[in-house]
Amino acid sequence: MSGPVLADSVRFAGDAVEILDRRVYPLEVRWVRCATSEDVAVAIERMVTQSSGPLFAATAGMVLGAREARHEPPERAAERLRAVGARLVATRPTNNHIRDAVHAVLSATVGTTLQAGTAQAGDELVAVVEAAARAHDDGYRARSAALGGHAAGLLADGARVLTHCWADAFLIGTVRAAQAAGKRLEFVCTETRPYLQGARLTAATLVEMGYRPTLITDGMVAAALSDGLADVALTAADRVTLDGHVINKVGTLGVALAARAFDVPFYALVDAPDPQAPTARDVVIEQRDGDEVLHALGHRTAADGVRGYYPAFDVTPPHLVTRIVTERGVYRPDQVKESL
Amino acid sequence: MSGPVLADSVRFAGDAVEILDRRVYPLEVRWVRCATSEDVAVAIERMVTQSSGPLFAATAGMVLGAREARHEPPERAAERLRAVGARLVATRPTNNHIRDAVHAVLSATVGTTLQAGTAQAGDELVAVVEAAARAHDDGYRARSAALGGHAAGLLADGARVLTHCWADAFLIGTVRAAQAAGKRLEFVCTETRPYLQGARLTAATLVEMGYRPTLITDGMVAAALSDGLADVALTAADRVTLDGHVINKVGTLGVALAARAFDVPFYALVDAPDPQAPTARDVVIEQRDGDEVLHALGHRTAADGVRGYYPAFDVTPPHLVTRIVTERGVYRPDQVKESL
Repeated sequence: MSGPVLADSVRFAGDAVEILDRRVYPLEVRWVRCATSEDVAVAIERMVTQSSGPLFAATAGMVLGAREARHEPPERAAERLRAVGARLVATRPTNNHIRDAVHAVLSATVGTTLQAGTAQAGDELVAVVEAAARAHDDGYRARSAALGGHAAGLLADGARVLTHCWADAFLIGTVRAAQAAGKRLEFVCTETRPYLQGARLTAATLVEMGYRPTLITDGMVAAALSDGLADVALTAADRVTLDGHVINKVGTLGVALAARAFDVPFYALVDAPDPQAPTARDVVIEQRDGDEVLHALGHRTAADGVRGYYPAFDVTPPHLVTRIVTERGVYRPDQVKESL
Repeated sequence: MSGPVLADSVRFAGDAVEILDRRVYPLEVRWVRCATSEDVAVAIERMVTQSSGPLFAATAGMVLGAREARHEPPERAAERLRAVGARLVATRPTNNHIRDAVHAVLSATVGTTLQAGTAQAGDELVAVVEAAARAHDDGYRARSAALGGHAAGLLADGARVLTHCWADAFLIGTVRAAQAAGKRLEFVCTETRPYLQGARLTAATLVEMGYRPTLITDGMVAAALSDGLADVALTAADRVTLDGHVINKVGTLGVALAARAFDVPFYALVDAPDPQAPTARDVVIEQRDGDEVLHALGHRTAADGVRGYYPAFDVTPPHLVTRIVTERGVYRPDQVKESL
C-alpha cells in the first residue's frame, strides 16, 4: 500500500542503506546514505531518524552487519553480528524498538548458520538475517495496523485530536482505520521542540493524508485544552511499563496534566508494554546534549552564557492516563500487563 | 543605576524615539527608529518591544504625539493627542500598561494647556506631556523595585527559580533585591516559543546579572518540576483580575498546572490588579497571527499546509496560584483586590 513518505523512510539502495533525514523533513528531503552498520548506528545516535525509524534502521543495520561478516568463519561471523547488534542497541536507550529488532534478528540466526559450518555459511547468514529483518519490519507494520484499528475505535466521528511529537506508524494506522470507518477527524499538533517533530513530521503526514492540522507551540497545550480545542489527546509511547507508566517524548507529561485538568481523555499508543520494565525505575531516560535546546533547525535561538537541559523523554504516571492502546486492544493502565 | 540593557530599551534620539528590537535581541542588537507616534504604534503591534517595553514606548509615543500637535490650536491639539493615545491603546489589548500610560499622560494635560489658550500653548503641552511621561516611567520603575523587594522575600537563599517568558522590570527588581539581601539564586528558564523571550531576553538579562541559567523548551516544564529542578515557579502577569485570575504569556497555565502537580509554589508578579477587570471574562485575550507559530526567528519550522494558532496569553485560575506579588506586598489570589 502506498502511503505517506514517512511510512517508508528506511530503504536499501544497492549495497547501502538510505535513511530519510527526519531532522529536516519536509523542509528538505534528504536521504542519509549508510554504507556500513556503524554508519547506521551513528545515524540513529544523531537523530537522522527517530520514533519507529530506528526499528527499521536497526533491522537494516543488522543486514549490513551480516554482509560485513559474510566472509568470516561462522563463529566469528556470529560474534561480529552480535557486536553490531550491541552497537545498535547502545545508540539510544529509552525506546525498546531497537533492542527488540536486534534480538529478533539474532534469534533467527541461532541454529541455522552457526551450526552449518559449511563454505556457504556466510551466504546463509545473510539470507537468514535478511529474511528475519523483513519479517520483523512486516510484523511491526501489521501490529501498527492492528493498534490503529483499536485506537480508531476510541475516536468519535468528528473528533478533534491533540497530538504531541510524532506517533509514526501508530498514528498512520489510526488515521487509516478511522478513514476506513468513515470517521471525520481534525488535528491540533504541538510543534515539539527542540526537533519540531510535530511541526514537521506529524503535520506533513497529516497533510499527505488529507487534513489541515492546526499547529501550536508546546506551551499552548493547556490553553488549547482549556479553550476546548480538542476532544482527546493522543500520543505514542516509547515505552509502557507493566504498571502503566507511559514514557514518551518530553512534554507528554504536561499534555497529560492539562488533559486531566480539562477533562479530556488521554490515550497512549504502544505496540506492547515492556515485560522487562515492571515500573518507571526500570527505564533509562535518555539525557541528550543540552546544546540541542539552544538551536532550532540549526539556527541559534538562545543568548550566550546559558546551558541547555534536554531529557528526551518524560514519565507520565498511570493515574493521568485514560487508556493505553496496544496491538491487542484497549487497556486501562493498571491492566495493561494483561495485553502481554 | 546602570543595569541590564533591557532595563532601558526605549530612548529618545533627537526628534525620534528608538526602541530596542526585542524580537532579535541579544542575537542582534538593533534599535528601531520611530519618527512619529504612528511609527511607535506600529512597532508595538509588530512586537518590536513587549512586556514592559510598550509602557515606555507608549509614554514616548505620547511625547511624539504632543510634538506633532504643538502647532495646532489647543482644542485641536488635545483632540489629536487623545487620538494618538487611542491608537496606542489599540495596538495590543491584553496588558493594561499602555492604557494606563496613555491615561496618565492625558490626565496631566487636563487643566493646564487646554485652558491656557495662549500662543505658547503648544510648547506648554509638550512640556507637560514630557514631564508626565517621565513621571510615569519613573513611577513604574519605582513600583517594580518595590515589587521586587516583596518577591525576593519569598525566595529562600539558594532557591532554584523556574521562569516563563520575560518578567522584565519585575524580574530585574526581584533579582536586585535578592542580591542586596545576599541570597544566592539559580534559574531554569523556558524558551517561550514562538518569540523565544525566555531563551533570549530572560536568559541574556540573567547572564548580565551574573547567573548561568538553564534553558528548557516549553514542553519540559512538567518534566523539570517532576525531576525536582526548581523550588519555585515565578512569572509576571500581564493582567490580574480582582478575583485573582492571572493572565500572562501563553504557557503560564501549563506551568501552574505542573507546579501544583509537583508541589512547587507558583508566584505571579504584577504591579497591581486591574480595577477594571473583576474576573477573567473582562479581559480580552489577544489572538495573534497564527503564522508566527510556523516560524522561529524568521525561519520556517513547519510543514506546508498547516495553520498556526496563537493565543498570546492564557488564563490561570486563582486555585492554581500560590501568591500574587504586587508593588504593595504579597497576597493570596482571593485577597489580591485588597492591594488596590
